[in-house]
Amino acid sequence: MNINRNTDPSPPFQNLASVVARLRESREGTHKIRHRGHIRELPSRSTVKQIVETLAGVLFPTHYGRADLHDANIDFFVGDTLSAALSALSEQVRRALLFSANEDLESDPDLPAKAHALTEQFAEMLPDIRAVLVSDLHAAYQGDPAATSISEVLLCYPGSLAVIHHRLAHALYRLGVPLLPRLIADIAHSATGIDIHPAATIGGSFFIDHGTGVVIGETAIIGQGVRLYQAVTLGAKRFPSEPDGTLTKGVARHPIVEDDVVIYAGATVLGRITIGKGSTIGGNVWLTHSVPPGSNLSQAQMTSS
Amino acid sequence: MNINRNTDPSPPFQNLASVVARLRESREGTHKIRHRGHIRELPSRSTVKQIVETLAGVLFPTHYGRADLHDANIDFFVGDTLSAALSALSEQVRRALLFSANEDLESDPDLPAKAHALTEQFAEMLPDIRAVLVSDLHAAYQGDPAATSISEVLLCYPGSLAVIHHRLAHALYRLGVPLLPRLIADIAHSATGIDIHPAATIGGSFFIDHGTGVVIGETAIIGQGVRLYQAVTLGAKRFPSEPDGTLTKGVARHPIVEDDVVIYAGATVLGRITIGKGSTIGGNVWLTHSVPPGSNLSQAQMTSS
Amino acid sequence: MNINRNTDPSPPFQNLASVVARLRESREGTHKIRHRGHIRELPSRSTVKQIVETLAGVLFPTHYGRADLHDANIDFFVGDTLSAALSALSEQVRRALLFSANEDLESDPDLPAKAHALTEQFAEMLPDIRAVLVSDLHAAYQGDPAATSISEVLLCYPGSLAVIHHRLAHALYRLGVPLLPRLIADIAHSATGIDIHPAATIGGSFFIDHGTGVVIGETAIIGQGVRLYQAVTLGAKRFPSEPDGTLTKGVARHPIVEDDVVIYAGATVLGRITIGKGSTIGGNVWLTHSVPPGSNLSQAQMTSS
Amino acid sequence: MNINRNTDPSPPFQNLASVVARLRESREGTHKIRHRGHIRELPSRSTVKQIVETLAGVLFPTHYGRADLHDANIDFFVGDTLSAALSALSEQVRRALLFSANEDLESDPDLPAKAHALTEQFAEMLPDIRAVLVSDLHAAYQGDPAATSISEVLLCYPGSLAVIHHRLAHALYRLGVPLLPRLIADIAHSATGIDIHPAATIGGSFFIDHGTGVVIGETAIIGQGVRLYQAVTLGAKRFPSEPDGTLTKGVARHPIVEDDVVIYAGATVLGRITIGKGSTIGGNVWLTHSVPPGSNLSQAQMTSS
Amino acid sequence: MNINRNTDPSPPFQNLASVVARLRESREGTHKIRHRGHIRELPSRSTVKQIVETLAGVLFPTHYGRADLHDANIDFFVGDTLSAALSALSEQVRRALLFSANEDLESDPDLPAKAHALTEQFAEMLPDIRAVLVSDLHAAYQGDPAATSISEVLLCYPGSLAVIHHRLAHALYRLGVPLLPRLIADIAHSATGIDIHPAATIGGSFFIDHGTGVVIGETAIIGQGVRLYQAVTLGAKRFPSEPDGTLTKGVARHPIVEDDVVIYAGATVLGRITIGKGSTIGGNVWLTHSVPPGSNLSQAQMTSS
Amino acid sequence: MNINRNTDPSPPFQNLASVVARLRESREGTHKIRHRGHIRELPSRSTVKQIVETLAGVLFPTHYGRADLHDANIDFFVGDTLSAALSALSEQVRRALLFSANEDLESDPDLPAKAHALTEQFAEMLPDIRAVLVSDLHAAYQGDPAATSISEVLLCYPGSLAVIHHRLAHALYRLGVPLLPRLIADIAHSATGIDIHPAATIGGSFFIDHGTGVVIGETAIIGQGVRLYQAVTLGAKRFPSEPDGTLTKGVARHPIVEDDVVIYAGATVLGRITIGKGSTIGGNVWLTHSVPPGSNLSQAQMTSS
Repeated sequence: MNINRNTDPSPPFQNLASVVARLRESREGTHKIRHRGHIRELPSRSTVKQIVETLAGVLFPTHYGRADLHDANIDFFVGDTLSAALSALSEQVRRALLFSANEDLESDPDLPAKAHALTEQFAEMLPDIRAVLVSDLHAAYQGDPAATSISEVLLCYPGSLAVIHHRLAHALYRLGVPLLPRLIADIAHSATGIDIHPAATIGGSFFIDHGTGVVIGETAIIGQGVRLYQAVTLGAKRFPSEPDGTLTKGVARHPIVEDDVVIYAGATVLGRITIGKGSTIGGNVWLTHSVPPGSNLSQAQMTSS
Repeated sequence: MNINRNTDPSPPFQNLASVVARLRESREGTHKIRHRGHIRELPSRSTVKQIVETLAGVLFPTHYGRADLHDANIDFFVGDTLSAALSALSEQVRRALLFSANEDLESDPDLPAKAHALTEQFAEMLPDIRAVLVSDLHAAYQGDPAATSISEVLLCYPGSLAVIHHRLAHALYRLGVPLLPRLIADIAHSATGIDIHPAATIGGSFFIDHGTGVVIGETAIIGQGVRLYQAVTLGAKRFPSEPDGTLTKGVARHPIVEDDVVIYAGATVLGRITIGKGSTIGGNVWLTHSVPPGSNLSQAQMTSS
Repeated sequence: MNINRNTDPSPPFQNLASVVARLRESREGTHKIRHRGHIRELPSRSTVKQIVETLAGVLFPTHYGRADLHDANIDFFVGDTLSAALSALSEQVRRALLFSANEDLESDPDLPAKAHALTEQFAEMLPDIRAVLVSDLHAAYQGDPAATSISEVLLCYPGSLAVIHHRLAHALYRLGVPLLPRLIADIAHSATGIDIHPAATIGGSFFIDHGTGVVIGETAIIGQGVRLYQAVTLGAKRFPSEPDGTLTKGVARHPIVEDDVVIYAGATVLGRITIGKGSTIGGNVWLTHSVPPGSNLSQAQMTSS
Repeated sequence: MNINRNTDPSPPFQNLASVVARLRESREGTHKIRHRGHIRELPSRSTVKQIVETLAGVLFPTHYGRADLHDANIDFFVGDTLSAALSALSEQVRRALLFSANEDLESDPDLPAKAHALTEQFAEMLPDIRAVLVSDLHAAYQGDPAATSISEVLLCYPGSLAVIHHRLAHALYRLGVPLLPRLIADIAHSATGIDIHPAATIGGSFFIDHGTGVVIGETAIIGQGVRLYQAVTLGAKRFPSEPDGTLTKGVARHPIVEDDVVIYAGATVLGRITIGKGSTIGGNVWLTHSVPPGSNLSQAQMTSS
Repeated sequence: MNINRNTDPSPPFQNLASVVARLRESREGTHKIRHRGHIRELPSRSTVKQIVETLAGVLFPTHYGRADLHDANIDFFVGDTLSAALSALSEQVRRALLFSANEDLESDPDLPAKAHALTEQFAEMLPDIRAVLVSDLHAAYQGDPAATSISEVLLCYPGSLAVIHHRLAHALYRLGVPLLPRLIADIAHSATGIDIHPAATIGGSFFIDHGTGVVIGETAIIGQGVRLYQAVTLGAKRFPSEPDGTLTKGVARHPIVEDDVVIYAGATVLGRITIGKGSTIGGNVWLTHSVPPGSNLSQAQMTSS
Repeated sequence: MNINRNTDPSPPFQNLASVVARLRESREGTHKIRHRGHIRELPSRSTVKQIVETLAGVLFPTHYGRADLHDANIDFFVGDTLSAALSALSEQVRRALLFSANEDLESDPDLPAKAHALTEQFAEMLPDIRAVLVSDLHAAYQGDPAATSISEVLLCYPGSLAVIHHRLAHALYRLGVPLLPRLIADIAHSATGIDIHPAATIGGSFFIDHGTGVVIGETAIIGQGVRLYQAVTLGAKRFPSEPDGTLTKGVARHPIVEDDVVIYAGATVLGRITIGKGSTIGGNVWLTHSVPPGSNLSQAQMTSS
C-alpha cells in the first residue's frame, strides 16, 4: 500500500494536524473495534494472498509456479517455496489465533508454537488436497465442451482458482484457524466473483463454470461430481435472530446437494433442503424445498409481448 | 504498466513503423476523443487506486494501514500517509477539473489552487466519513450470522470495501469533482463486483452481503439501516432519449429505498419508485412500482417437472 | 509470485522433505496433466496480462499509456512499447502453439518463426481493431445516460475493458493461436465480471453496461449496435455428450443476436436461436426460442404478498 | 529510501515523540541550512541517477539501453526514453536553479520555462557529446593492452562510466545550472572512485585506467589524448582564505595538462602549473612546478633494507 | 538478491543435485564458520543499509528524506520513519547480540528486550548526533573552496555520507552492539571509498574532502576541526601476534590527531603517535613518529629526469 | 534502468525528433563499435550482477542467501537458486561467446549448447571454489587484529567480496568465456575499490585489507598466504606497442608474488619481477626489480620541516 509520492512538491495542507487529531478521536470513540481495549495484531491480506499464490505454485509448479522447471530442479523449487510459504503462514496463523473464542489464548506464551504446529498439520494435508484438486480439473475438462486441455482449465478457468482457494481455506478451517479461511475465500471471491464460505463441505470432481455470482453458504454440503454454473446461490432461507437483533450464528441453514447434481445458471436454492443424487436444476429456478434423487426442475416459460 | 522486456533478443518486427503510422492516423481520424482539439491530461487509474487504499489506511490504520502500529506511532503514520494521499489527490483533482462543464476552466491559472482547496475540504470530511463507516461495519456484523468479529467484516467482506470506496467517492462527487468519483466506483466494482454510482445517496448502517452483481444507479436514494444481498439491482426502468438518439442525462430515474428495508438476492427494483420503510423484498423479485412501508414481497414458486 | 520472506527467522518445518516427496508422487501419479509424458512450457498469465495492458496503451496512449504524452513524443512511445509487446507476445504464441492439435508441431524447429509470423499478422490487425473499438466507445457514450465523456467511458467502464480484451483475444483466435485467447478472456473476466468466450463474433458499436455476470458463449454471433446489461447470459441450452460422457466440443450452440438488439439485465438467452434485428429483451427474461425482428419481450409481473 | 516494515510487530518505542520533538528543535536551531528562512525544494539524487543512466542508454542504446534493440525499433526506444529523461531533467533543473546566486530567481514565475529552455539546449548538445565520447572509447581501447573490444571498454571500464558522467555534467555546468553537475559527478565518484569536478575542462580521446582515487580539480584544463592511471591527483597546492577563515572560492588553482600527456598511477600534480605536450609523468611522482613539452619524470628508487 | 528468472525456458542442468550435495559437504566440512555447531541468525546487510538511509532522512528530512516535506507534515514523516527504522534496528541488534563475547546470551529469553532497550538508548542519542553532524557540514562548507552551499555539501560530498554513517555506527559501538557498527562502516566504505573503523573517536567539525582511499583505524583518536584529504591513512605500524600466529586484537595502535590538524592527500600516519594541535601534514608524507603542535611537514621534492 | 515518469505532465520538447535523428547519424558514423556491421547481443551488466550475488548466496547461504535457512530447507534454497543462476548464466555465456576471437562462432547453431556445456563445467567447479574461499576467510580472520569473527569477515570486509568475485570470474576465464570475467571484475571494483584482472592467478589463503585502490594486473601470479593492504599496485612497468600505436596485448608484464608475502599500503610493484617467498614490502615502497625470499623493504623516512 505504498503510495508514490508526488515528485513535484505541492503546497502544504494546513488542516492536516487537526484532521489527524479528529481521526484519533474517532478511533477512540469506537473502541469496540479494538479487541479488549488494546490494539491487536491482524493478519495481512496481501501476505495471505502471496501465501496462497505460492501454495498454488507448490501444488501445480509448472502452471502456477515458474516457466523454467524441469525434472532436475522442480523439487528444489517446491521445497524452497513451500518452506517460505509455511513460515509466512505460521505467523499469520499466530495472529489469527488471537481471534479465537478462547480469551486466554492471546497472552499464551506458547501461541507461536501452537501456530507452528497447526501449520505443520496443514502442510501434511497438501498432498491429499492436490489429489482432490486433480479430480476437480478432470471434471471441468469433461464438463465444458469449450475446454481443450487440462492446462487450459488450470490457467483460464475462474472455477479452478476458486476451488484451489476453497480447498486450502477449508483445510485451515478444519484445523480450527479463525479468520484466515474467510480471508482466503474473499481473496478468491474478488478474483473470480465466486463466493464460497470456507466452512462449506465440497466433495471431489467439483466444477463451477463461468462462476460470476455463485454463492455457497457456510453450512452447505456438496457431494461428489457436482457441477454449478454462474449466479447459482446455495443460500439460507431465513435467519433466526437473537433477542438483541443480531442474527444467530452457526445454525445449519444451507442446502445439501447430493452426488452428480447439475445446477444451471441463476438457480437459487435456499434453506436446509436436500437435492437428491443425480438431479438437474434448471436455470433461474427458485427452490426452497427438497427434491428426490433424479429430479429435473426447470423454470416456466416467459411470455413474449 | 511496465512490461518486462524479453531477456532473449528476438528478431525485429519489420512492419513496426507502418503499424505505428496507421495507429497515428487512426487517432487523428477519431479526434472527437480528444478534448477541444488537443491532448488533455487525464487522471491516472493506478494513482487513484493508491490514493483510495492509502485513505482506507488513514481511516482504519490497524486494518488497512500497517501491522506495526501502536499508540506511540499511529498518529505519525496517519499524518504522514494522509499528507501524501492529499498531495497526490490534489493533482488528480486538478486533472479531473479539466473535465468539468465549465469550458474556461482549463486555461484558468488558478486551477491548481482550486484543486488544492477542494482537497482541503475533502480532508475535513474524513472524520465524519469514518463515523458513518463505523455504523456500516456494525450493521454488517449484526446482519450476517456468519460474521464472527468486526475485524473479519473489515478484512474479509467485499461489502466493506465497496462502501468505503463509495463514501469517499460520494464526498468528492458532492464537492463537484468530475470523473474521479466514477473512477473510484469502478475500482471498487472491479474488486468486489458491486457497482454503486458515486452520485447515489446512501444512509448509515448500510450492509451489502456477498455483493457480486449489485448495481445501484446514479439517482438512487437509500435510507438508514438498509441491507442488500448479491445481484440486487436498483436500476432505471426506461431511458428517455434526445432527438439525436443519445439517452437524456441526469433525470431522477432510480428507486428510493426507505430506512430498514431488506432486499434479498437477485431482486430487481426499477424506476423512480419508493420502497416503504421496513419492507422486505424477496429474492429474484421484479419490482417496478412503489410499495408501502412494511411490505413483504416474495416471488412465486417455480414449478418442478 | 514472489513471496516476501519472513524477516524474523522461524523454526524449521520438520516434515518439509516428506511433503515435497509426496507432492512429487502426486504429480507423477497424475501424469495425464503432463503433455505426452514430459513437461511442456506454458504461457505465463502475468506476462500475457502485461502484454494486453501494453497493447491497450498502444491503442489509446493517453488513456491507458502514460500521462506525459504529447504530439512530439507519442509515436516514440507507441513504437517502443508496441515493439516490446510484440516481442513478448511472440514468445507466448510460441508456447501456446505447443497446445495446437497438430502433434508434430512441438518438435518443429520453425516454431519460433511461425510464432513470429503470426505475431506480425496480429500487429497488422491493430489499426482496424482500434477503429472498431472507437465505435464501441461512442456506443457506450450514447447508450448510458450517466456517461459524461468518452474519457469517462474509457477509464471507468468495465465494459470498455472487456471489449478491448475481447477484440484482441478474438484476433488471436482467428489467427489460430490456441490457449492465449482464453487466457486473455479470463484476465478480463477477473477484472470485470464479464465472461466473453474469445471465439464469439461481435460486431461494432457494442456496449455492455455494468456487466457483472454477463456470459457470452463460444459460438455466439452478435451484430452491429447491440447493447447488453449486467447478468445477461447468451448460453447453450443443452450439451450433447460423447459416449465416454465428455461433452461434445465445438458444436454451434449459442444465440445469434442481430443488429440493434437491446437485452436488459439478467435476461437468459439459450441455444442456437436468433433474436431478430431491433428487438428488445426485458430484464430477467428467460428465452429459448427465436424471436422475429422488432420483438419486445418482458417478464411477467411478480405477485406481491 | 523505502524501508521494509517489520512483518512481526514489535513493542512500541516510548520515547518516540520526545525524540521527534528534539530533532525538530535541532533543525530549527540550525536554520542556516534552510534557504532564506524557509524550506527549499531540492534536487533528488535518485532521480538524477536515473536520468543519467537513461541518457547513457540514449547515447549508447545497445550497451546501456536494452538487449532487444534492432534497426526497426531503436529510434522508438531512443525517442521515448530521451523524452522521459528530458522531462525529468527539466524538473530537476528547476529545483537546482533555486540555488543560483541570483536571489530573485526563486519567486520568478518563469522559472519552469527557464528550466525547460535550458533542458532543450542541453538536448541539442547530446549528439556532439556522443561524438567526443566515441573518441574517448577508442583512446581506451588503444591505450590498454588488456582491452579486447570497444564493447568491453564500454561495459567493464570504470573510466568509461566516469567520462560519460563528466561530459554530461560539464554540459550542464556550461549552461549555468547550479548543483546538478556536482550531484552527477558525485554519483560517478561513488560508482568508480574517480572524482572529477564538473567544471574541469577535458579534451577528447581521454582515458583513465583503473581509476580508483583519481581526483581532478575544479579549474583543471586537460588537452586532447591525455591518459591517466589510478590515484592521480590534479589538485590545488594551497588555498587562499578569506578574512573569516573560509577558503576563497573560484580561483584558478589546478594544473593545465597539454595534449598527449600520460600520467602514471599515484602521481600528484598540484597548483596552476603546466605539463607540456607529450610529457610522461611517472608513478608516484610529486610535481608542483611546470615542465616543458616532452618531459619525462620518474620517481627516485626506494632503498631496500 | 532476487534473480530474474529466464523467461525463455532453458535445458536442465543434469549435475545440479550433485553440485548441491557437494556444496553441503563443503559447508559441513567447514563447520567452524557455524557458531557453536548450529546456524546462527545473521544481521542483514540490505536491511541495515535501509535503516541507515532512513535514519539519514530522519536527521536531514529535506535532503535525505522526501521532496514533499513542509512545516505541516515534516514531524509526521520524521515520527513515522523513525518508528519504522527503530523497529527494524531492534531486530538487527538482537541478531548482532548473538555475536557478543558473552556465550550465554544466545539462549537468553530476554534478548529481544535487551535489543529493544539498546535501541531506545540509541534513539535518545540522535538529536546530539545531529548537532555534531551540523558542525561537520559547516566545516566542509568552510574548508572547500569549491563548495557553494550547505545543501551541496549534504547532497554531493562523499565525506558527508561517510561521517553520517560513522557517527551512527560509533553510537552503536559505544552501546556495545557487536557487528552492526562494522557493517554500517563497510556500507559507507563501499559507497564512498572512505574506510573508518566504527571504534575510532572523532571530534566535531570534521571534514574529509574527496575521500577515496582514506583509512582510519580502530583505535585512532581525532580532535575537533580536523580536515583530511583523499588517500590519507591513519594506520597501525606493526601488529603483535599471538603464539598461534593470529594477530593480537584490541591494542591501541593508531594515531592521535589533535584539534585543527590538516592532513593532505596520500599522507600515511602510522602507529600510536600524536600529531600536535594545529599541525599541517603535507601530501604523501610518511609519518611514524609524534610531532609537536604547530608542526608543518612536507615531502621532499622528486627529481625530474 | 527504468526511469520514473513525471507524474506532472510537462510541456513537449520540440527538438526531440531532430536530436533522435542526429543521434542515429552519430551511431551510424561510428560503425566500428558495431560488430562486423550489425548489432550484436550484449551481456547485461545488471543480470550478471544478479547472477554473481546469487552464486555468493549459493556458496554461503546463511551469509549471502537468506535469513530463514536451517537444515530442513537449506538444500532446497541452494538447489533452486543455483538452478536459476546457471540458467541465467548460460544465456550470458552465449552472448559473451559472440566476442570470442573465432569469427565463425556467431553463426554457429550450436552456440547455445556450447554455452550450456561451459556453464555445466562452471557449476562443477563451485565446490572447489568454495573450499578456497574458506581458506581466504580464515586468512582474513587471522590477519586482521580488528576482526572478531568469520561472520564479520564475510559480511563487512570488501576484500571478501572482491575475492569471491575474482574466484568466480577467474573460473569463467579459465573456461575461455570472453568478456564476462571482466564484467564481474568491474562489478567488484565498483563495490570495493579493488581492481583485480580476472586473468590474474591467486593462491589460497589470500587477504586484502581495506583494499581501496588495489590494482592487480592481468598476468600477475600470486602464491599461497599472501596479504595485501589498500592502494597496493601489482602493475606493468612499460607497455610495448604495435606499429600502429596500439599497445601490444597479452605479454607477461606483471609481478610474481611468492607464498607468504605481505605488501603494505600504497606499495607499487611494477613489471615481471619476482618477490621471493616470505618477503615484506613496506608501505609506499616503489619496487621495479626482483627481491629474494625473506626480503624486508621499507621506504626511506620523510624529512619534516
